[in-house]
Amino acid sequence: MFRFKTLMLALILGLCSNMLHAANVILIIGDGMDDHQISIARNYLKGAQGRLLLDDMPLRAAVQILTVEDSTEHKPVYVADSANTATTLATGVVTSRGRISTAAGSDEDLPTIAELASAAGLRSGIVTSASVTDATPAAFAAHVSLRLCENPNKMLDINYRGIPLGNCKQDLKAAGGPGSIAEQLAASSLDILLGGGSKHFSPEIEGGNISVAEAAQANGFTLVHNLEQLHNAPADARLLGLFAPGTLPVRLQGEGQRSAEAAKPSLLNRLHPYLGSVSYPDVMRCEANPQAEGIPTLKAMTEVALEYLSRDNPTGFFLMVESASIDKQAHERKPCGSIGEMEQLEEVLATAMAFAENQPDTLILVTADHAQAAQLVPDGSMYKDYNIPVYSPGMVARIVTPEGAIMGVNYATNNYPYEEHTGANVPLFGNSEAQAYVPAFIQQSDLFNIMRDYLGLKPEVELRD
Amino acid sequence: MFRFKTLMLALILGLCSNMLHAANVILIIGDGMDDHQISIARNYLKGAQGRLLLDDMPLRAAVQILTVEDSTEHKPVYVADSANTATTLATGVVTSRGRISTAAGSDEDLPTIAELASAAGLRSGIVTSASVTDATPAAFAAHVSLRLCENPNKMLDINYRGIPLGNCKQDLKAAGGPGSIAEQLAASSLDILLGGGSKHFSPEIEGGNISVAEAAQANGFTLVHNLEQLHNAPADARLLGLFAPGTLPVRLQGEGQRSAEAAKPSLLNRLHPYLGSVSYPDVMRCEANPQAEGIPTLKAMTEVALEYLSRDNPTGFFLMVESASIDKQAHERKPCGSIGEMEQLEEVLATAMAFAENQPDTLILVTADHAQAAQLVPDGSMYKDYNIPVYSPGMVARIVTPEGAIMGVNYATNNYPYEEHTGANVPLFGNSEAQAYVPAFIQQSDLFNIMRDYLGLKPEVELRD
Repeated sequence: MFRFKTLMLALILGLCSNMLHAANVILIIGDGMDDHQISIARNYLKGAQGRLLLDDMPLRAAVQILTVEDSTEHKPVYVADSANTATTLATGVVTSRGRISTAAGSDEDLPTIAELASAAGLRSGIVTSASVTDATPAAFAAHVSLRLCENPNKMLDINYRGIPLGNCKQDLKAAGGPGSIAEQLAASSLDILLGGGSKHFSPEIEGGNISVAEAAQANGFTLVHNLEQLHNAPADARLLGLFAPGTLPVRLQGEGQRSAEAAKPSLLNRLHPYLGSVSYPDVMRCEANPQAEGIPTLKAMTEVALEYLSRDNPTGFFLMVESASIDKQAHERKPCGSIGEMEQLEEVLATAMAFAENQPDTLILVTADHAQAAQLVPDGSMYKDYNIPVYSPGMVARIVTPEGAIMGVNYATNNYPYEEHTGANVPLFGNSEAQAYVPAFIQQSDLFNIMRDYLGLKPEVELRD
Repeated sequence: MFRFKTLMLALILGLCSNMLHAANVILIIGDGMDDHQISIARNYLKGAQGRLLLDDMPLRAAVQILTVEDSTEHKPVYVADSANTATTLATGVVTSRGRISTAAGSDEDLPTIAELASAAGLRSGIVTSASVTDATPAAFAAHVSLRLCENPNKMLDINYRGIPLGNCKQDLKAAGGPGSIAEQLAASSLDILLGGGSKHFSPEIEGGNISVAEAAQANGFTLVHNLEQLHNAPADARLLGLFAPGTLPVRLQGEGQRSAEAAKPSLLNRLHPYLGSVSYPDVMRCEANPQAEGIPTLKAMTEVALEYLSRDNPTGFFLMVESASIDKQAHERKPCGSIGEMEQLEEVLATAMAFAENQPDTLILVTADHAQAAQLVPDGSMYKDYNIPVYSPGMVARIVTPEGAIMGVNYATNNYPYEEHTGANVPLFGNSEAQAYVPAFIQQSDLFNIMRDYLGLKPEVELRD
């Protein structure tokens, strides 16, 4: 068992190192926010000629996404999931899909930037629109072999309709491990943790008779469950905010809750692709999702987090904010949902940029963890003049944009209820502070090094055997 | 008729303006070269952890692609074709799909950067792996309302299996127009024009009894048809090289000439998506395309072009080099073909960078005209543990990479023999010279302004009415 060996080394080294300057890092992750998602959101939110706030950032680079098989040989896998990529961002180590800040093959726990920051006396926080136990936030403050091990009841018998999906038996406390993701978050030294996922905090902790939420309180967290409580929480508390049972409701939805839909070819067309006709899905608008009413926005949570992390703080902080449902809505073929969460990310970025105006030693990085399935496609085929039915074999949404044109969005990576991720390199944006540190093209793991160095968390820690 | 009115104004102004310094612009266009194509090529050519030469360029930015409907109202269209985007790059004007350096709605001819350069006493050249009459090269030196009007026989009755696809009757010389694309190229002041498309130069010119090729010779072009002739052409000639009847053969193909293929679900699975099984396409390697043997590579053509354009040249030059079949092979669902043409683009870039080392006043820009359909997808679904058949509804290639892993490439924008383009913003790369001129995010039309200013082709020319 190599658990915590390198982590403790890292903590000790980190503790000695951050004596140089007080600096802040705000890492904003748009889950699945690739150039298609960005272009779709730009067209809808700002118009074809418009600019997102992202587009006005002085730094734009590309990030090479790396994944390996679950072995110590590190054979490449060309498409990532959010668990392995969040691990890479949080720890600088490339790992295998499904892992939460543990190493491929060896299962070694990997120290995270949030842990290093806390150990060095900096504050640290996580804000997400997912459950706080979801892969991206989890990877910054927990270590398990499988992302599905979100609470004490999900450590051994994880299945979907009887199909076993793995377990985390070596992460059980009884086996000398740190327990489930929720238990690790409750035991963490985070200063603020906001998002969804309250259902993962109600089970009893392993080997105890209190709930995970009670364990978090015992560890000094003040619990809040709604916007009013969030704004009225004591100024000096460590804060755990859980605003929904799971993922927070998204801001926008297709009218009538419509997703992308299949084109409907005529019977004749089914017999031969050059015959018959096809009915395309009706156009649709995006509308507000009533379920999001009263739920704290990502911006509101970020504002509170920045206030908590920066108040009377001479040492600096690390904050990760995730707009999670760009990806989740794309899996479900809901372009309006993704667009709304891109808008939430833009608001977070505006908040971070305003903060950095008053705190110049603040590095702001915005990136995606991996690319996604959605494609911005022509509304009406480029070959429609050829007078035969041409249509996507997948699902298409035809969105009426506020400027009055129609934007096609195609989802066609599989026939399953959830689309696949894709393997393109993803964009990275940074504020002027980032320009000195980030080249035009970097590996995802380099971002960890840049953030660690910026926070003064040197010297280097040997993370691998 | 507004034909040539503004063009002549531009030429006169251009003539007076380039007295400041001798500068060179090399614009390299990867047709359809979006971040998926780049990532696919990187994985295959350099490995998952590898870097393309593109990735080592000091400047990387994003380009907003704009297209409008064919009217003077400029209502946006969210997905482009190569004709309208090449027009934007060549002239700085956003136009409608299918147009070659003519304005949407008004059909006004738009002066191109190559024309402005020639008029100001600079040299100009075009190199492409497509037919020189294809949309991208054409837009730098010709003006027609429809890209299909490639030769004198294709001006009026353009159809596909009896389906009429438009015409260029107002571009006929008899109507006071400049004639077909091939005729305009033959009459152009380009110093060098290399690529495919000899079949478009054999018809007789409109209203004459000589072929387009003979007209080009009468205009001072030396014609070459193979690599030997290319290398032995007289040093002081203007050069027209046509090395294939149409598009040049591509470098790589799937083994056994295989393209992406459909997964084959079992009969039971056709009845219900959770039942039965599915056969995925066999994996495949990429192999050399024997048809490309003896054809000049894009690099060989670029070397000759740079030699011709720079020799004893005190005034500078504009050169556009297009790797055309990244896009063309993606339309045909041939990932190996696209990868090979990405490799050709890399070789061109290496050639250009080596040239710029000795000629520091050389601006190198590499960009795509628009995004394409191919997606880098997981080989084996992310949901394969769920024990039901999961597969793409489109066509998939499973490519064995030289590092021994399998890379999935999905084509699923339509059911037609040719995939659609897509609408994501595209990457832009530049050499150190470009860093002073190019911000992190720009509109495609801005690239024209940057190149024009760099070549000293100010003052501004009013391009629209």
